[in-house]
Amino acid sequence: MTQLRFALAQIDTCVGDLDGNADRIMQYAHLAAHGGARVVVFPEMTLTGYPIEDLALRRTFRQAAWDKANWLATELEADGLGDLYVAVGTVGTDHALDKPRNRMVVLHDGTVSAAYDKHFLPNYGVFDEFRIFAAGERSTVLEVDGVRIGVAICEDIWQDGGPVAALAEQGIDVLMTMNGSPYEEGKTHTRYDLAVRRAAEVHAPVIYVNQVGGQDDLVFDGGSFVVDADGTLLERSPMFVEHLGFFDLDTSAQHQTPGDIEPALDPDEEVYTACVLGLKDYMAKNHFTGVCLGLSGGIDSALVAAMAADACGGANVHGISMPSMYSSDGSKDDAADLAANIGAHYDIQPIEPLFNAFQGQLALEGVAAENLQARIRGVIVMAYSNSKGLLAVATGNKSELACGYSTIYGDAVGGYAPIKDLLKTRVWELSRWRNRAAQAGIGVGGLRIVGNESRGAGKPLPNGVMIPVNSIEKAPSAELRPGQKDSDSLPEYELLDKVLAAYIEHAHGRADLLADGFDAKTVDTVMRLVDRAEWKRRQYPLGPKVTALAFGRDRRLPVTNAFRE
Amino acid sequence: MTQLRFALAQIDTCVGDLDGNADRIMQYAHLAAHGGARVVVFPEMTLTGYPIEDLALRRTFRQAAWDKANWLATELEADGLGDLYVAVGTVGTDHALDKPRNRMVVLHDGTVSAAYDKHFLPNYGVFDEFRIFAAGERSTVLEVDGVRIGVAICEDIWQDGGPVAALAEQGIDVLMTMNGSPYEEGKTHTRYDLAVRRAAEVHAPVIYVNQVGGQDDLVFDGGSFVVDADGTLLERSPMFVEHLGFFDLDTSAQHQTPGDIEPALDPDEEVYTACVLGLKDYMAKNHFTGVCLGLSGGIDSALVAAMAADACGGANVHGISMPSMYSSDGSKDDAADLAANIGAHYDIQPIEPLFNAFQGQLALEGVAAENLQARIRGVIVMAYSNSKGLLAVATGNKSELACGYSTIYGDAVGGYAPIKDLLKTRVWELSRWRNRAAQAGIGVGGLRIVGNESRGAGKPLPNGVMIPVNSIEKAPSAELRPGQKDSDSLPEYELLDKVLAAYIEHAHGRADLLADGFDAKTVDTVMRLVDRAEWKRRQYPLGPKVTALAFGRDRRLPVTNAFRE
Repeated sequence: MTQLRFALAQIDTCVGDLDGNADRIMQYAHLAAHGGARVVVFPEMTLTGYPIEDLALRRTFRQAAWDKANWLATELEADGLGDLYVAVGTVGTDHALDKPRNRMVVLHDGTVSAAYDKHFLPNYGVFDEFRIFAAGERSTVLEVDGVRIGVAICEDIWQDGGPVAALAEQGIDVLMTMNGSPYEEGKTHTRYDLAVRRAAEVHAPVIYVNQVGGQDDLVFDGGSFVVDADGTLLERSPMFVEHLGFFDLDTSAQHQTPGDIEPALDPDEEVYTACVLGLKDYMAKNHFTGVCLGLSGGIDSALVAAMAADACGGANVHGISMPSMYSSDGSKDDAADLAANIGAHYDIQPIEPLFNAFQGQLALEGVAAENLQARIRGVIVMAYSNSKGLLAVATGNKSELACGYSTIYGDAVGGYAPIKDLLKTRVWELSRWRNRAAQAGIGVGGLRIVGNESRGAGKPLPNGVMIPVNSIEKAPSAELRPGQKDSDSLPEYELLDKVLAAYIEHAHGRADLLADGFDAKTVDTVMRLVDRAEWKRRQYPLGPKVTALAFGRDRRLPVTNAFRE
Repeated sequence: MTQLRFALAQIDTCVGDLDGNADRIMQYAHLAAHGGARVVVFPEMTLTGYPIEDLALRRTFRQAAWDKANWLATELEADGLGDLYVAVGTVGTDHALDKPRNRMVVLHDGTVSAAYDKHFLPNYGVFDEFRIFAAGERSTVLEVDGVRIGVAICEDIWQDGGPVAALAEQGIDVLMTMNGSPYEEGKTHTRYDLAVRRAAEVHAPVIYVNQVGGQDDLVFDGGSFVVDADGTLLERSPMFVEHLGFFDLDTSAQHQTPGDIEPALDPDEEVYTACVLGLKDYMAKNHFTGVCLGLSGGIDSALVAAMAADACGGANVHGISMPSMYSSDGSKDDAADLAANIGAHYDIQPIEPLFNAFQGQLALEGVAAENLQARIRGVIVMAYSNSKGLLAVATGNKSELACGYSTIYGDAVGGYAPIKDLLKTRVWELSRWRNRAAQAGIGVGGLRIVGNESRGAGKPLPNGVMIPVNSIEKAPSAELRPGQKDSDSLPEYELLDKVLAAYIEHAHGRADLLADGFDAKTVDTVMRLVDRAEWKRRQYPLGPKVTALAFGRDRRLPVTNAFRE
């Protein structure tokens, strides 16, 4: 009988931050050894951060990553951890092709060894790996104390054939996978079903270690787990926090013994926490400690402010009320209440005098005059950002961004938009969930996410309410002209969001949408709005490429990139 | 002896505009037949436009393209052109994989036939084809009057092996290629050298037909050509204009007879014209007839205004002078002179009263106060855009964008940025070239580009000067504080641009740059500026993806997309 203890190191890395990531690996390797592990496995591209996009094409970066892996191996041994098998992800180089590889290496006995290169390189959705990496061609089995550990990296288990099929033929005792799998509603089940299928294929348990943390426009949710050969869930780590899990493999047992299984999150809590973690990590990785945003009294800015308070604490949130001649008293009160609830800074900057100054020169009418109000507010928000060093957060939701119902350089300004992938109806649902959580005692900053206190009360909320009920229940309005309602320009959100979900998220065409039961007028309205809003969603000017390497399409670097030569 | 006349139809298409593109094909097929051609070949993905990015993934679009190809075949026959072989590019479907194909079809005798699918799918730089298309696996030879015509699509001739190697073995009389090859300085020679190599490989002449026109951030320059098996240039079409060229193949001749060979353009004229065509087509394809921009009296806005006048006529250019308390009289005069030279509308909108109104509330200092001035100007430019239906054009150059020396939501606002890929020293060179052209009698709109008059005087320029000499010769300044010069914040442009070219366009790392002879202080300054400016160049807020399909990374559609279901 052989028993082998694995540690699942679910950590948060930063793209390009070789020093910081190496320190994190060191810290978790110590914890793993202290917990009695023989093998510790980290997420995909641990050392470099993930996804590194075109940064991988920089030869100097690959050299620096290689040097850092060797430094780590040496340091681990010097710290008395030479016996431990430390599986980390990094970038390698195919010297024949002069192309990078998405690589797993094992640090052991002071050396870097046992490289495995990712075989299936995803090239769809948010992934561009085939663009960047050369594909690995060999499967790899690591032997530790006589136990045969097959290895795979993320997409390798999402496609049939390839290294997993080869490992199934060779025979292994366990399949150990490192992953960088971005969050998506409902994906927990998909990953679990997939792992169950692969466990059956290799007749062995599957270890699934996933990255946690925000990286630019992606959020990695962690939720690492182990399933047995028969599909039984043996271990599950929490989502959205760094975590070290353990799994004891007994090669002589028919069935493995289950360990810690974290209960699943409420679906609203899950999405809310993903948004908070995305913002929190974007701030940390770009060295911001506070945010500023416009508080209109509407539900979008209220939810974003609540998320910001949970991400960085209410005292680091600067809310700016910017009432115009069309702002209702109710809206102003709701904005003030929200700021008080979360303990935010709260300033009032009326825009009417500024609006009048512009209008004295420009005499705008109609939509141009409405946009002017939004852009004056954008200027004020950016003034706070520039003068106080705050991250400007944008408050647009997916419904309005999809339909172009926003002003570019106006309400759309900011460095991060926490709810840009939430339909309006989801904004309401998450606001209600956050208030329920407040009633249950989860105060500002009390969510369970990386770097926050583990789930606790946080800063208590007055009256047990975070988001004013009025902001949730009133009819949505941009308040850019008297009596304006969103429903003047858009279908009601209950209907609109259903069409948007079908058209965008499920890629239904016009005929499909009609077959879905939507009326032709609504379908045509929504499709026209969405198809024409592409430029607004981008905001930045396109321009002709005339040199070998322009910015934009042919030089794709992560925004959050800590690498410095 | 067999003689076969080919027509090279170098046309300008629009992504998604199946109707418009089909009409263009019809028109050129008539011209080709009238000119005695037996075969007419169009650019890559003629019918759909190129590059279509994720639009190809939409099944309804592929169906519509297929229907349109059949309509075209029928119409051609009905018009008496059934005998003509019409080779057009379109999107196909691999039904087994449910993936699109980058396809060439031949319309003949009222039917769509002889499909060839692109084999090498570029997946680097500006190209994402491997992401989208399934690769073709067969080479195709088309037989017309006993002549064996091998076919290939663009990247197929850029890589060794594949269909061209197969055709070389099979033996062909001519290699006919359709291309969507974006413009890049110096690329004319690269393409020619490549075609010569392939002609030698297949022992036959190579026909190279390239797309012309602007498509979002790409410009296609046309410049179609034919080379003989021995590398002799037999035909060359002009750059930047639609054109129908002819080539007579004589299969019994040792050497083919040369036809029309367009002389090469001056390198400055070439780049200037690429920028003008990009802007002109972006306007046309997005239904703008006029532009607005801030005119500071500086060289960047002067050059952009000149380009705009060449693209849409001076009378459709709205220049806005927005002087502040720091604007010099010289700058105001230079702006007015430029506007007069090109015959533009010219308004003066002083920003001091607006600046003071904001400062009464915000009391900003330092860079925040400087950004405020730029953002007030951004608001005014967008007010003109919204109220008059004009395209706002941004005037930033590559040097300042690379270094982040600009204000987001300020001078960077706009839908198109004609000089965003031109380093500052290139801005000066092109300005001088445009003035030389003016002295040579090329007035406003007199450039040779698609849809303009063929090269002629255009609207004559007063004094034979377009861009005020003072704008070219004075020291660059943002004029956001008294006595400010760009050189206070940046290395001198002569040096800066050399470092930028090496770092960005030639991807040199730090060690390379030092070996290039640049001093360490300059290298570190420039690298730090460039590495930190990524977000500014994007402008739009990132946000967490939480659904299956968010906007941005996983839904990539061209801005200019005329497809409507």
